[in-house]
Amino acid sequence: MGHGQIYPRSLTTPAERKQLRALRSKKGREEMGLFLVQGHKLVSELLCSPFKPRAVFATAGAAGALAPLAKHAGVGFEVLPDHELEKLGTFETGNEVVAVLPFLPEASDRAPANGELVLAVDRVTDPGNLGTILRIADRFGVKRVLCSKGTVEVFNPKCVQASMGSILRVQVRYDELAVRLRAWSTAGAHIYLADGEGSNVFSTELLRPAALVLGSESHGISPEVKACASSVIAIPQFGGAESLNVAMAAAALCMEFARRSLG
Amino acid sequence: MGHGQIYPRSLTTPAERKQLRALRSKKGREEMGLFLVQGHKLVSELLCSPFKPRAVFATAGAAGALAPLAKHAGVGFEVLPDHELEKLGTFETGNEVVAVLPFLPEASDRAPANGELVLAVDRVTDPGNLGTILRIADRFGVKRVLCSKGTVEVFNPKCVQASMGSILRVQVRYDELAVRLRAWSTAGAHIYLADGEGSNVFSTELLRPAALVLGSESHGISPEVKACASSVIAIPQFGGAESLNVAMAAAALCMEFARRSLG
Repeated sequence: MGHGQIYPRSLTTPAERKQLRALRSKKGREEMGLFLVQGHKLVSELLCSPFKPRAVFATAGAAGALAPLAKHAGVGFEVLPDHELEKLGTFETGNEVVAVLPFLPEASDRAPANGELVLAVDRVTDPGNLGTILRIADRFGVKRVLCSKGTVEVFNPKCVQASMGSILRVQVRYDELAVRLRAWSTAGAHIYLADGEGSNVFSTELLRPAALVLGSESHGISPEVKACASSVIAIPQFGGAESLNVAMAAAALCMEFARRSLG
Repeated sequence: MGHGQIYPRSLTTPAERKQLRALRSKKGREEMGLFLVQGHKLVSELLCSPFKPRAVFATAGAAGALAPLAKHAGVGFEVLPDHELEKLGTFETGNEVVAVLPFLPEASDRAPANGELVLAVDRVTDPGNLGTILRIADRFGVKRVLCSKGTVEVFNPKCVQASMGSILRVQVRYDELAVRLRAWSTAGAHIYLADGEGSNVFSTELLRPAALVLGSESHGISPEVKACASSVIAIPQFGGAESLNVAMAAAALCMEFARRSLG
């Protein structure tokens, strides 16, 4: 059964689709202001979100359940042969559903207020870690994540994937981290910095509004950012174990911030 | 410069090395009772641990710093051409250091006592998640992880890698989870089960000795295991976010168990 029989004829030209392949690279994404959301689960979630993709592409095998969602969302939906999806998507294999979405709105730069907690990440270069941090933020009710300029691009497909849809709910901003945090501190926000040499978080007062700053294991937190801290906090040691990665540390510390906010 | 000039002649025959390639598969590992520890950082850590690999293989480029460590540990060290390392290792590229290690000792089946906390995982199929859970256990002073029979093999290279060396410090046991947990419960351990429908962990008494049972997002916890719980606990919701993955939930809940033990 040809897909032309159940869906309208191709909406994009081969030349247009060739152009979309550039979205697999950072350069292409930045030039076009578009990024990829992939896989059945994430694209379904996207189609139920406030954000409207430019187009959704799927193989005939994967189209069934998505087509009605796309129609309902008023989004162009196009069935393509499997080999065309393989060229559009970034998964090693099994590229069956790819949506093209304009860059999401950047988070505001206003200082945290009214008890807000913002996460800030300094020089996190692994896209999976950044995506996981978005997911943790989402889970703990954190609405904004501030990233240093040296942090990996949030629209990297591995980050989008690891966020499991949280990229649609948590806003991100790339900024001069030290400058921004100093301004926030002046505006009354408490700047907590996570570092193995800090004081035991369990016996530290955690005040809000606040920003919690996390660095990567490999690069740590830069000296300019360290200089903005109101307080340096650590998860206490239990034996001789190594550090947690940045996403695990985010989960553990968000848990403690969450507990205090409920207390 | 030929590597033969600085290192002793090949210690393994080509036939032996061909056999070792089987360690990239679960079947091969189980038949030989051996597994792979890979990469410069992990193998260095291994050579400083109480465990003695059968052999360490490295490219000429990677051999420099490792050779003295291997010599000091009394471990056979062999420099091989890059293409031979590519065949032994499981990384997509950059297989430079591979150690072959006998299976590590299994954790004891004795009931937790004297305030011990044990983690138990039910049907976690992603090796990266299991490895990360070992790392979290290690960081929070948990010495034993009990796995259901349906949980991914701990000697899977992706698990070993994600554990970042914690596999050398945390003992694992595969067991009939429900049977073991019932026995532990009878022996006086408290069995806590993490589930989104449980009661708020912050307002639940967390007693020890204890086992904390975690299931995967996709498979959840099996009914037989659920039936063993003394208490079902949840990280409270903050907004409409999705669940955490099992490793994130482990980090957050270990944080709260750790806080109580210090309190």
